[in-house]
This record gives sequence, structure tokens and C-alpha cells, in this order.
Amino acid sequence: MDKVLEISPLFIRINDADNVAIAVKDIPAGAKVAEGIITNMEIPQAHKVALEDINVGESVVRYGMILGFAKESIKCGDWINEFALELPKPPNIDEMEYGKNIDTELPKAPRRTFEGFRNPDGGYAGTRNILGISSTVQCVTGVLNVAVQKMKEELLPKYPNVDDIVPINHAYGCGVAINASEANIPIRTLRNLIKNPNFGGQIMVVGLGCEKLTVDMLLEETDINPNNVIILQEQEGFDAMIKALMKMADMKLQILNERIREPLPLSDLCIGLQCGGSDAFSGVTANPSAGYASDMLVEAGATVMFSEVTEVRDGVHYIAERCINKEVCDKLSKEMKWYDNYLSESEVDRSANPTPGNKKGGLCNIVEKAMGSITKSGTSPIVEVLSPAERPTKHGMIYAATPASDIVCGPCQLASGIALQVFMTGRGTPYGLAAAPVIKVCSRSEMKQMWGDLIDVNAGLIATGDASIKEIGTELFDYILDVASGKMRTAAEKYKLYNDVCIFNPAPIT
Amino acid sequence: MDKVLEISPLFIRINDADNVAIAVKDIPAGAKVAEGIITNMEIPQAHKVALEDINVGESVVRYGMILGFAKESIKCGDWINEFALELPKPPNIDEMEYGKNIDTELPKAPRRTFEGFRNPDGGYAGTRNILGISSTVQCVTGVLNVAVQKMKEELLPKYPNVDDIVPINHAYGCGVAINASEANIPIRTLRNLIKNPNFGGQIMVVGLGCEKLTVDMLLEETDINPNNVIILQEQEGFDAMIKALMKMADMKLQILNERIREPLPLSDLCIGLQCGGSDAFSGVTANPSAGYASDMLVEAGATVMFSEVTEVRDGVHYIAERCINKEVCDKLSKEMKWYDNYLSESEVDRSANPTPGNKKGGLCNIVEKAMGSITKSGTSPIVEVLSPAERPTKHGMIYAATPASDIVCGPCQLASGIALQVFMTGRGTPYGLAAAPVIKVCSRSEMKQMWGDLIDVNAGLIATGDASIKEIGTELFDYILDVASGKMRTAAEKYKLYNDVCIFNPAPIT
Ligand SMILES: [Ca+2]
Ligand SMILES: [Ca+2]
Ligand SMILES: [Ca+2]
Ligand SMILES: [Ca+2]
Ligand SMILES: [Ca+2]
Repeated sequence: MDKVLEISPLFIRINDADNVAIAVKDIPAGAKVAEGIITNMEIPQAHKVALEDINVGESVVRYGMILGFAKESIKCGDWINEFALELPKPPNIDEMEYGKNIDTELPKAPRRTFEGFRNPDGGYAGTRNILGISSTVQCVTGVLNVAVQKMKEELLPKYPNVDDIVPINHAYGCGVAINASEANIPIRTLRNLIKNPNFGGQIMVVGLGCEKLTVDMLLEETDINPNNVIILQEQEGFDAMIKALMKMADMKLQILNERIREPLPLSDLCIGLQCGGSDAFSGVTANPSAGYASDMLVEAGATVMFSEVTEVRDGVHYIAERCINKEVCDKLSKEMKWYDNYLSESEVDRSANPTPGNKKGGLCNIVEKAMGSITKSGTSPIVEVLSPAERPTKHGMIYAATPASDIVCGPCQLASGIALQVFMTGRGTPYGLAAAPVIKVCSRSEMKQMWGDLIDVNAGLIATGDASIKEIGTELFDYILDVASGKMRTAAEKYKLYNDVCIFNPAPIT
Repeated sequence: MDKVLEISPLFIRINDADNVAIAVKDIPAGAKVAEGIITNMEIPQAHKVALEDINVGESVVRYGMILGFAKESIKCGDWINEFALELPKPPNIDEMEYGKNIDTELPKAPRRTFEGFRNPDGGYAGTRNILGISSTVQCVTGVLNVAVQKMKEELLPKYPNVDDIVPINHAYGCGVAINASEANIPIRTLRNLIKNPNFGGQIMVVGLGCEKLTVDMLLEETDINPNNVIILQEQEGFDAMIKALMKMADMKLQILNERIREPLPLSDLCIGLQCGGSDAFSGVTANPSAGYASDMLVEAGATVMFSEVTEVRDGVHYIAERCINKEVCDKLSKEMKWYDNYLSESEVDRSANPTPGNKKGGLCNIVEKAMGSITKSGTSPIVEVLSPAERPTKHGMIYAATPASDIVCGPCQLASGIALQVFMTGRGTPYGLAAAPVIKVCSRSEMKQMWGDLIDVNAGLIATGDASIKEIGTELFDYILDVASGKMRTAAEKYKLYNDVCIFNPAPIT
């Protein structure tokens, strides 16, 4: 995906193994789209045109991957629609091949360091310096919000090196089946959110006192003390609560204010990738650009996570091929099976996927759709697979299983330790995270024109032939490091567009 | 429950049919607790003492209901612990008796009107005058919050008759299994929240544009127009979004500002009841007081809802007895079965209920625990049963099935149309709703002493013999009408303690 990036004003070809390309706009019959390739019929925008003759039964290849097999013979210049292809045999998730596609030639990162906040635990560095205030239960939200407002007005101005104060309000903690087997996911999420690199190792937890999620489920025993934990039921009324919260915040802010940015190797950087509001161009422009930037980050030693189980599920065998060993591949299949089961318990599956809209948008089958999503991960070897909200133990490209839901994937990745997120969008969303900067990359130039103040990077130039995946990928790489280093602020940060912390709780409400 | 309220400084008896009473504090052996009743052994605080001899196999009655049957003969003055009772036969939920306990003698309400905001649709009246801004999806939350902040600063001061501007931010709308059969619950919740009486019939919905929950799922076709709906993807960037939101809010606020309070019959009032952070005294002091107030409200024509399926599940046959007809009783059993199934799908059930803490607190079995919760509904006939977030069609006492989770029950009841909520608590919680006032009633005087500024009504005086259930019930009734009429503000309103809008979504995240 990194070596050959053939672009013409009329079509986009992503991988040098591809024998199809994507029409940038409606192309009439008889158009010369490239040397030796003349369209035999009209090709709708975002649909596929054959770049060579493909005989019956031969592979149709896009993203360097087999999308399917020709049902009838396809001529060079033909339109390849959803009826032309036989689906490849669905992968047996228990016996996926691993390690057969380990790409060791990654694009060389032009920069090897960034300016981050080193953390006391020696883990990943922060890209922002934030006081994160965790809570055990939604019950405390009202008091915590009032206190945080007061902290921002009265305390934050005293500490210029601190960027923000962020309460982790969430719907979990009580009225939930805390002993259900799936409860480990929300509990792990909340435990690990506290450790996010942007929070500088400072612990501040607010509990109520009678909730099911007790403080010892969130913190190590050595961290449970009056310097880190406030229980509202132990406070003598509202004023006392606010006073206690202000006092603890002041103490934490003093410590955080000592943090300063320093040049750090990219191995200290951990970022996440996700997409939302995707369109037919997401897999053509924005996601491959993110893939290119990711490969450069990984080449320089950074950790990059991609996620969204239902989005990648049907191309999972292509992820498996990139897994470095059996253990990683087994974890991958375990996570996919867990999610299959989770959905099937409610008699939900992926059957309605892709939608008629997807097909109209040129996606001929579920593998092609998944590949568009997977392409954001570039071609780097996959060194680890994480359950939702687990923390990584490896550096490099990691598959962190999460729901595809933007607002749920975000907190899961934050819990896994990302200090920055890159978000690809086609239709546009004002999505943002309070705990980490979110860089918005759009798939179409029309989106950038419409939402100039909300989109950080425009990958749509690729679709119009005005830039290559390599160029936009490199621009995005630079932008990621500039944002991570505090030299740039994202649009979401500028306008303070922050989504709620929506925790993944697969267990019932009681 | 309303006729005989025998109180002594040492024990509390709730119903004149009861042959047991509850110790207000630890009572030593040999203490004369009432005329002719001397303790034969120590009775721990909140535990039961026999008020008469009970032979083997005879009923132990509390709340006027059979808690169980004596395993051995019990003497007047004996302690009745969890080992003394045989559980009554668990009710067959398919064949519950209905209508055999229809109480037509309710305590006479001393006031028959309140000052509310009449609504254009002729439904229940508002207790507050609020601009509610609904959203189709969490994606818009960041923009909506920024806009609401600006509205509160720049617009609200211009409209003195409007109390507040409340965004309905929630985690639903996309990345969810919108076609799952259980999706009807969150969708109904969001549809009906728009119709809450405190929002004055004004419709303002903010959508993104590519979400699964489309505007037509929330609004009637005739309400979908540019005066009521803003789609962010149709706006040219952030500034345009804010401008559009401000303009629409200004228009709605102008209309709302014309609303004025007027004297209305109590049949125009709909309130909800729930409890949270309960203790052994909740079922003895706070909940029976709420029951007394509820009976007076119902007597005067008001609508009162109680909820919390898992809290009432084991006493559901006593709710069935109060159902006015088979249809209501059948709906009750249907809702219980739905929840049983919802929990069992995740291999969760009520087996850990009551907890060792409950037993230590004097609750000898699951029926007694449920009765403590049900007692908040008084003795009024139950005229209707609602599925979660359904709107009522009857006036009077209604069982509105919801999760017991405080933060999920709240939005469900708001969707069902409550304009005020009464919240009983033992341990104390700063819970609050932005869309409706929440009156906090505590079960113990210690709680009131500790959280004087957060508790509105202290029912703990009942436990110390300083007030009767009738007295506190009447005080609460008056307080409800004063708050509903805008003459009083609750503690939660004063400090702006508002929980997030946590929508009940039993279907999976995708
Ligand atoms: Ca390569
Ligand atoms: Ca997503
Ligand atoms: Ca009566
Ligand atoms: Ca389930
Ligand atoms: Ca509750």
C-alpha cells in the first residue's frame, strides 16, 4: 500500500497488486482513464473499473486483497458491480492464517521525536497536561460538574502549565449487574481511564459511598487514601463536598503544573484511529492516508491502535495475515467470536451490512467494506490484540477490539492509553474527546469546504487527483506530531467539542 | 396503611393488620415496648418484634402483607429473624390474583389545586417552564453543549418566565442495533421525553444527518420542519451551527416566555416516585411517608408513578392485588417476565437479593425487601401499568416499569410524563434531574443532620417517634405541591445538581 500509489484525475488505485481502480467521478463510456484503459461503459462515481482483463474465476484485487472472483469474464475498462463477483470463501475464524503478510518495508518517518509530557510510571507520554477526575458512579455527577466548573474558574488560571480539568462522568457504577461476567469490560475501562497518559499519573476519584462499584475495584490498594479519594457520603453536606473537591484538585494541579514538555522518541507516543460517518471515499482517501501516516509512526517506534469490531469483522482474515504470531492471531479470533456472540444474544447480526447505500456508493460486498475500514491501519505487522479497554504491552500496530460506535470506541481507546486520536469522516461529525486531542480527517473536499472550521486535514484532494495518499499521509503524520507536541490545537479543542464518556457495558441494567 | 399508624419511641408498626413491628433502636431483653408487650430477648435495630403469639404455620404480617409463615411457635415479644420464617409460595406470575385489594378509602387531600403551567396539548401541566433541546445522537453533544452555554448567557436573561434550558444529551442514536426488538425502548424514551410537560409543547431537535436514529423516528411528520429541527451536516461549519441553534432557541424561548402559572386541579399533575441508596429504615419511614402523600395525591385526582422492576419483583403479587382489572394485571406480569428474561440472557438473576447487609438490617427475605420498596406507592388502586417510557392514559396510581437504577429510572419516568419526582434515600445521594424538580426524602435523622443542605424532607423523625407517617406524609404532600407550584425550590435545583440523561437501551452496541 505504501510503494505504488497510482493516481490519475479519473481513478484511484491503492495497491500495486490491484487490478481494479475507483472512479473519482462519473466516467462516461469511451473515456480514456489511463494509458491503454478505455471505459467500455459508464462507471458511476466511487465504483470499480477493471484495469486488465479478468477471466472467469480469477481474482478481483483491491487494497492488495481478494475482494472476490469474477463470475463472468471481465474486460479491461468494464464496470465491476456487486453482481460481477463471487464472495471469497468466508474465513473460518478458528483457523485463520497468521504471519503470511508481514510487511517489513514501512515508509521512513521524516521525524523521530515529539514534545510530550513524560509520565512518572515510565509508560506512554502525554500530549496534553490534564487533571482527570474519575468517579465510581453516575450519582456523583451533579456535584462533580458543579465543582469542576468552580475549579476551572478559580483554580485553573493559577496553573498555566495545566491544559484542562476533565471529569470522567459515566453511566456505570450502580444499578448494574456488577457480578455479570461481562462487567469486567466497564470496570476495566474505568480503571484504565485513570491511567491515561494525559492525566500525568495523578489520581483523583470521587465516590458516593453505597455504590456497587467500590473504590477498590478501580484503584490499587496503595492508591486508596484521602489524598486520592473523596467519598461524598462522608462529607457533611454540599458545601463540604465542594470544599473537599476544590482542595484535592488544588493539590493535584500544583503537581501537574510542574510537568513540562520535553523532546521524546516516538516510542513514547500512543495514538488511536477510528472512523465515523464514513462514505464511499473514506476507504479511498482518508483511511489510506491514515494508514500511510500510521506506517510511518510505527516505523519510528510509536504505538498505533485501530479498533471497531463490526467494521473489520468481514476482513478479519486480512488482519490475521498481519499478526506476528499465533498468540496474537488467537486473541484476534477470540475477540471476534466474543462480539459475534454478544450480537447474536439479541438476535442481531451483520446481515444488513452492507446497506443499499453502501452498494450505491460502490462497495460491492462486505469484504470490500471492511477493507476500507482496515486500510486505516496501513500495512504494519500487528504485534498485539487487546480486549476492550485493555492496556498494551507492545509497541507498534495494535488491534484494540472495541465497538464501532464512535462514542464508545473513544473511551475504550482512551482506557487503552491513547494520548491522541485520529478520526476519519466522510459525512462529518463534530465528535471530540475531552481527555485527548482528536484530529479530524475528511474524505472529500466538499466536506472541507462545508466544515472548514471543523476539519483538520482534507484527504479529499486525493480523490480529485490533487494530492497523493503519500502526500496526505505525510501531511497527517506531521500534523499528528505537531498536535501531540502542543504546537497545534485541533478544531475540536479550539471549540471545546467534547462527547460524553460513554462506557461499553455489555451487561444488563438492574 | 393510612388508617392506623401506631408509633412508639421504640417500635414502628405500619399497618393495623401487622402482627410484627420494627425496633427503632437496639432494644434489650425485658423492655416494655408497649402495653402488654415485653421483649423476651434483645431485638437489634430495624429488626422485627412479635406483637402477639404466632403459632407454627401462622402468618407473619407486615405492611398488611404476609411475609412468611412461622416455622416454630413465636411468642409475643420475640425477635423474628430470617430463620423463623418460611417464605410464602412464590407467586405464579401468570396467575396472579387481581382486584382483591382495592382500597377505596384514601386519606383526604387537604389541598386540591396547584399552580402549574398549562400545556397546549391539554395533557399534564408543567411544574417548571423549560426549553428542552432534544438530540437524535450523541455525536451532536459537543456542539449542543457549547450552544446551550451561550444560550444561557445571552438569551435566557431576556426571558424571565423561562426557568432553564436543558439539552437532552444521551448515548443512543447510532452505533446501536436500531432494528433489534428491544430498540423500541430507547426510541420510545427519546420520543416521549420531547413531550415532557415541563417543556411546554415546544419542539427543538438537533440531529447530525447520518445517524441511525432519524428525525422521523422521534417526531410526527407534521412536526418535522425547519422551525423544529436542525441537522448539523446541513450547516456550513461550526459558526453556522451555533447561529442556527441560537436563532431557533430564541424563537422557542419567546413562546415559552408567554407561559404563566395558573391554579389547576391536581388531575393536571403527574409525579414519579423512586428510591435509591436505601437502608433498613427506608421501608419504615421515608417510603411509607411517600405512600401516604401519594394516596392523598391520588385521592385528589393526581397521577403518581412508581417503578423499579427488580425492587418490586418479589412482592409483585401484592401489586397485582391492587390492579383494577385483568388487563392491568396482565400487563404487570408481562413487564416482570420481560425483565426476568432480560436479566437471564446475561445469566444474571435476583439470587443475591437480599444481601447479607439487608439481613443484618432486619430484612428477613426478598418479599419483605420488595414490600419496603412497594410501600412508597401507598394503598391506592393501580389503574395502569406502563412499559418503560410509555405515556399514561389513566389518572391515579400507575406502575411504570423501569430499571431500579436511579439514573435510568429518572429519564424513563420523565418520558412517561412526570413533571416532578420524589426520591427516597437512606444513605444519601445528590441525584437530580435537569428537566424536573427532585424532592429528596431521607429515612434517618442522621442523614438530615449530615446533609442538611441536600435533603428536602426528613422522614427520620418517624423512627425516633417524633412524628407519625401521617404527619410526614402530609408534610411531603404539601411540599410536593409547593415545589410543583414554584413556591419552593428543591436542594438539587438550588445547587443545580443534575444527572446525565441515561437512556435504557437493552439492545447491543454495534
Ligand atoms: Ca510496505
Ligand atoms: Ca466508529
Ligand atoms: Ca385506606
Ligand atoms: Ca444481552
Ligand atoms: Ca432507584
